[in-house]
Amino acid sequence: MPGIPPPARALLWRQLRIHQVYGANTEVGKTVFTTLLSKAARKFWPREETVFLKPVSTGPADDADDRFAPEIESKTLFQYNLAVSPHLAAQVSKREASRNSGWLFVETAGGVHSPSPSGTTQADLYMPLRLPVVLVGDSKLGGISQTISAFESLKIRGYDVEMVLLFKEDQYQNHLYLTEYFEQKHGIPVKTVPEPPHRVADPKSDAQAMSQYYDTGSASPVLHKTLQHLEARHESRIARLESMSTTASQKIWYPFTQQKHLTPSKITVIDSAHGDHFQTLVPQPTNTNPATTTLPGTAALLQPSFDASASWWTQGLGHANPSLALAAAHAAGRYGHVMFAEAVHEPALALAETLLRGMRNPRLARAFFSDNGSTGTEVALKMALRAARVRYGWAGDGERAGVLGLQGSYHGDTIGAMDCSEPGVFNEKVEWYEGRGYWFAGPTVWRTSAEAWEVVLPGEMAGDGGQERFASLDDVFDVEAREARGEHQAYERFILTRLEKLAAEGRRFGALMIEPVVLGAGGMLLVDPLFQRTLVKAVRQNPHLFSGGGALAEPDATVDDQTWSGLPVIFDEVFTGLYRLGRFSAASFLGVDADISVHAKLLTGGLVPLSMTLASESIFRAFESDDKSDALLHGHSYTAHAVGCQVALESVREMQRMEAQGDWAWAAAAPEGANQELTAEHNKSKLTWSVWSPEFVRWLGQLSETSFMAGAWALGSVLAIKLTSVDGTEGYKGGAARAVQAALLQGSEGGDETRWNVHTRVLGNTLYLMTGQKTDQESVRGLESLLRETLTQASRDAQQA
Amino acid sequence: MPGIPPPARALLWRQLRIHQVYGANTEVGKTVFTTLLSKAARKFWPREETVFLKPVSTGPADDADDRFAPEIESKTLFQYNLAVSPHLAAQVSKREASRNSGWLFVETAGGVHSPSPSGTTQADLYMPLRLPVVLVGDSKLGGISQTISAFESLKIRGYDVEMVLLFKEDQYQNHLYLTEYFEQKHGIPVKTVPEPPHRVADPKSDAQAMSQYYDTGSASPVLHKTLQHLEARHESRIARLESMSTTASQKIWYPFTQQKHLTPSKITVIDSAHGDHFQTLVPQPTNTNPATTTLPGTAALLQPSFDASASWWTQGLGHANPSLALAAAHAAGRYGHVMFAEAVHEPALALAETLLRGMRNPRLARAFFSDNGSTGTEVALKMALRAARVRYGWAGDGERAGVLGLQGSYHGDTIGAMDCSEPGVFNEKVEWYEGRGYWFAGPTVWRTSAEAWEVVLPGEMAGDGGQERFASLDDVFDVEAREARGEHQAYERFILTRLEKLAAEGRRFGALMIEPVVLGAGGMLLVDPLFQRTLVKAVRQNPHLFSGGGALAEPDATVDDQTWSGLPVIFDEVFTGLYRLGRFSAASFLGVDADISVHAKLLTGGLVPLSMTLASESIFRAFESDDKSDALLHGHSYTAHAVGCQVALESVREMQRMEAQGDWAWAAAAPEGANQELTAEHNKSKLTWSVWSPEFVRWLGQLSETSFMAGAWALGSVLAIKLTSVDGTEGYKGGAARAVQAALLQGSEGGDETRWNVHTRVLGNTLYLMTGQKTDQESVRGLESLLRETLTQASRDAQQA
Repeated sequence: MPGIPPPARALLWRQLRIHQVYGANTEVGKTVFTTLLSKAARKFWPREETVFLKPVSTGPADDADDRFAPEIESKTLFQYNLAVSPHLAAQVSKREASRNSGWLFVETAGGVHSPSPSGTTQADLYMPLRLPVVLVGDSKLGGISQTISAFESLKIRGYDVEMVLLFKEDQYQNHLYLTEYFEQKHGIPVKTVPEPPHRVADPKSDAQAMSQYYDTGSASPVLHKTLQHLEARHESRIARLESMSTTASQKIWYPFTQQKHLTPSKITVIDSAHGDHFQTLVPQPTNTNPATTTLPGTAALLQPSFDASASWWTQGLGHANPSLALAAAHAAGRYGHVMFAEAVHEPALALAETLLRGMRNPRLARAFFSDNGSTGTEVALKMALRAARVRYGWAGDGERAGVLGLQGSYHGDTIGAMDCSEPGVFNEKVEWYEGRGYWFAGPTVWRTSAEAWEVVLPGEMAGDGGQERFASLDDVFDVEAREARGEHQAYERFILTRLEKLAAEGRRFGALMIEPVVLGAGGMLLVDPLFQRTLVKAVRQNPHLFSGGGALAEPDATVDDQTWSGLPVIFDEVFTGLYRLGRFSAASFLGVDADISVHAKLLTGGLVPLSMTLASESIFRAFESDDKSDALLHGHSYTAHAVGCQVALESVREMQRMEAQGDWAWAAAAPEGANQELTAEHNKSKLTWSVWSPEFVRWLGQLSETSFMAGAWALGSVLAIKLTSVDGTEGYKGGAARAVQAALLQGSEGGDETRWNVHTRVLGNTLYLMTGQKTDQESVRGLESLLRETLTQASRDAQQA
Repeated sequence: MPGIPPPARALLWRQLRIHQVYGANTEVGKTVFTTLLSKAARKFWPREETVFLKPVSTGPADDADDRFAPEIESKTLFQYNLAVSPHLAAQVSKREASRNSGWLFVETAGGVHSPSPSGTTQADLYMPLRLPVVLVGDSKLGGISQTISAFESLKIRGYDVEMVLLFKEDQYQNHLYLTEYFEQKHGIPVKTVPEPPHRVADPKSDAQAMSQYYDTGSASPVLHKTLQHLEARHESRIARLESMSTTASQKIWYPFTQQKHLTPSKITVIDSAHGDHFQTLVPQPTNTNPATTTLPGTAALLQPSFDASASWWTQGLGHANPSLALAAAHAAGRYGHVMFAEAVHEPALALAETLLRGMRNPRLARAFFSDNGSTGTEVALKMALRAARVRYGWAGDGERAGVLGLQGSYHGDTIGAMDCSEPGVFNEKVEWYEGRGYWFAGPTVWRTSAEAWEVVLPGEMAGDGGQERFASLDDVFDVEAREARGEHQAYERFILTRLEKLAAEGRRFGALMIEPVVLGAGGMLLVDPLFQRTLVKAVRQNPHLFSGGGALAEPDATVDDQTWSGLPVIFDEVFTGLYRLGRFSAASFLGVDADISVHAKLLTGGLVPLSMTLASESIFRAFESDDKSDALLHGHSYTAHAVGCQVALESVREMQRMEAQGDWAWAAAAPEGANQELTAEHNKSKLTWSVWSPEFVRWLGQLSETSFMAGAWALGSVLAIKLTSVDGTEGYKGGAARAVQAALLQGSEGGDETRWNVHTRVLGNTLYLMTGQKTDQESVRGLESLLRETLTQASRDAQQA
């Protein structure tokens, strides 16, 4: 793609063994060891090439020892003022694509955290390349500590340290301690070689001595064994990667997957991930038998794959974010996990405070912890049902109370959470499922043409109003202005009519439960925020409809910011909250506050499971009693586990910092090259913004005027594209998006060294993509560019079919 | 307690500020900085004492600079050949208990990971003390890398690094980079002081120059500000600790807790945890106002508290285990979390293979991942119900099928999991709960006298057999011998009679779900393994009882190791598995294999939530279909998160290593000092073992002959003590164990510096304790000793009442 640099890629070839040489300190002999390794490789693998690479030159001193290895190709790739990592990857890829086999040693400069030219430390910089590491240990005074710390800095960045090499030094004998330490604790072999001769003044004698040292050293069994170990590890890494999909197809039972048709070739093998990208094994049809492979042995085995489902909507701060890894490790090192019932620890309390404050919802006063969105929903449900039962005086048969919700909602996979949604493909075959409630069909919002956004009314409501067109998404989201214009009245009539009918039928409800703004798993439905707002208000203003045959509702003179009215209102913000749609809370789009709010996914920035259910004091009080068993009977073993809380704290605070610093200003502002009209349209936007450019969304609107597409929308980091069903199948079982998904997985054009692809999940006929909160503008534009190509082609194919 | 050394304790006093000075390397000026800090403290806080402590003397060179600070008390505490950490804690505690206020600087030797006298690196050794750290950065060439790596090694061990100090050095200017790095990334201030003068040959001039350097330096505003910052952090740490319980009582909604009576003083404030112990805030009634405190300001604020519920049964390898922290960070740095549907990554696959292999159950072939025991149970349930529905041809009304189980079972907090247990205090007030199934009353096993173990039959079964006494627990667990003697026949008759009756009533079941050997939350009931074995066999051998009005069961000629028969058998090993009871799988005690097995808690060694549901291929095939929606519709966002899988892999493998190495041999062998009879009794034990000594369990049996206690049992790491109800209340609401619990929380005798207590959870009248898998013999004997005292006293009190 012109103008879009390829993403960083992990480097792996079958017949080329690349290793990165890191030093535990400066002056530990990195260059000496790399020279020894290179010379030994040349000696013991004489038919292969050996290259000694220094990505960055920091001065002539670094090259001092090159003269002792004239047989080795030795290159310094870059000047000190270049950003190194992506360039290194591209450069190495280009260089190596034509090689048959060999050894390549990449020597880093200084210690593991010595700053690179860009300022980033090297350990951070080279992470995505995932090169196996040879760590040169420090044999000097204090070197034990230096070596272990350097190892840990690499380890927590996902590096595999394959070997520790160091000089055998007699005074401090660090190698004795380190050998035991690394072999016993980490199964990593430690090898030593003698120290080089002391330098002498006479250049000729000096050179001679060094030359002899290198000749002897590189021919030694130690070096040979070292290289054999590295080769064996390289081969077993590839063999494992290549067998994983087959093993997985035999041993793993996959979530939400019909495995009858899941052949091993359809399983994505993920070697690692960094930022927005997985590094995945390139499918090679016959790659289990190199002798008969149809691809050259020189093909790259790994490729970057944009994680466009944000790994089931969880990713925020990017894969393998070092801050989150460090936060996780800190909490693990301070607490492990500690009991939370009747106890408290700092990360949990600080997180509770931060989330409660960040929500800016005066109702929410308390935080309950659980493990995922589904359990968080069950907690919310238990809270609401109890509050309603106590308020309305239902005696002992709370199980008759259902939930009010929207059609297309989804709240989780446990049976109680499933029961909160209407029957459908996600639950109707689950044996214990029984939908308990009533679900309104809601109007949805789509960009359906170059010019306009459209609110599409469901069939049963169409009689009440009509469909409406808006010039911008902000106009749709300006719910107060629309309310002032009376646009909510049709909704209100529709809602009240149905609520009255339900009440007349004796139906009983214990909660209004909705996903604010977007129904995710239900098909990425952007629901008219005015409808949700009106629904919440209608429920609150009509408590008489909900007493459900119990005692009359208490007088609602007590309705203030804290006290719930009508029904406890639950907002499931698991998917929509915490900046996924551009704001801390998705509820803020509606301008109404929930009594109970559920959070997960982005809460931990995409690292570990954790969920929080926030509730008002008014809900909390319904559980107060002298009877212990009136308490909220929920609490998983790892409730408020310190690792999750610390990671969430780091993550939420970082996103708040990003917002305060205006890190997403580029997304709110019109894209470069936008014409005046677009700029003007976009800049007046204050209510909504998206990383997806208005220009691109407009283009999608235009495409939606054809029979190929039904509509699109973009908000925050999410983009949804609804394709027209080709066979009339709607919903989760629709297959219209599959072809586009496959084309995106096919990926970009370009050679082996620049190709990348896009990993998406589809929901029936809807293709969606979402970025992380750290994804940069350039990457989004790259995705848009690839999408344009792909959709254009697919649309042409569809016309021809 | 005589002979039992007090556990390591975190050191915190209100008016004494202790800091640990770590160096990023050797020769970075630790002693210079510590001397400067000490002299500055003396200067700016003239009315307080200042102490400069070197826990370990490594030679006279270390003390070189003492002569420049004659006004400072400076001590080297220990010889090089002593274990340092617990001694340091005790020594400091003793020394400081009588101090009013002051500064104490503890200088470490070498770098952060320099080995201590015991061989453990210092960063590991001093972890439990939780002293705030002043890190002396490295201003030399390569020092940036050394400083950052040293910081990370401390951070992942839970240390709080409060300041980075280093020399202002003009050639490399490390301080410029480090200041930006630490302040921006970690909010940690970096301060510099000039380098000390070059040493000169003339001792007098040298001393004069250094003396002047120290005088000028220690009086500088930089040092003053540094100390003020440390003081402010010290004070805010204490203020936060002291306000946390109040804040928590206002902001946190606690799991399984009736908060009406949970006053702040009842909330345990956990500062940190290490090994078996929490470090908790010592309750100080008026400690929010130091002026009026009833305790001296010199009292220790933290105390070690043995985590005897293993933090809700999760802890295995000890709190804050560095290997698990590093494993978590490694996975976080390699992947973050990555999508698992139709994808695979190494930690998940390796864990699936390890667990499947470790179970040694030929039926189990596949692993499904979820987040906790409750979700893992719901997955198991969905699996079993589908398999049963498909097998028996029930059309579309699988929801009628319940589970067969045991009374007192508990499988989790989500509503579907709750529905798997009979109505009781844990669920009957949950609005949507409806027990779906039938639950047998089972015979339980207790040590009820000095001589014997007793199998207690439930009332409804007593007519079928009688109660039986056994000389040892192994005799109870020798199910094959008992079966050979026909002891199972009464059980079988009892079970079949009921199953036939249920079948005649048209009851339909989709699973047999049991917790093998021990029912945990139901009250720590050790169920006769012969009963569970007989139940499983009866279900398998009588498929005709389970067709439930559907098509006839298929001929069971296909019953082999893989194919389920009668009902899918689910073993919930969440609590009982993975060495909690002494074996990898609790199922192995029964000698029958499950078709589906659920694992969590110890799976991750006590760090983060993760659950696995293992299933046979026969169960898996019931979901195979051309229809996508016939798939198992379950899958949480963080399914098979890499951090959890990596930690679990590390944890399971470590426990397997411990077993293979015989790390628990001390527990299997008779205790030192046991008399011949006991040794003989114990040594013939091959089937069961426990960390709790037979001598102690025998003593408990003896106590059970009195009206105070009803019985006890010990198996693996678990000890259960059933007290006699004082008011006739049985089950979860019983209160007999409360007094003993309170006494254990009161803790050991001894002064401020050696006191520790035991944090337990009770289940009604049953007090239970469990250790981790790394808890050593000495600690268990210490617990036994404290329990003996406490129970003896409580029994006396009961007699008098």
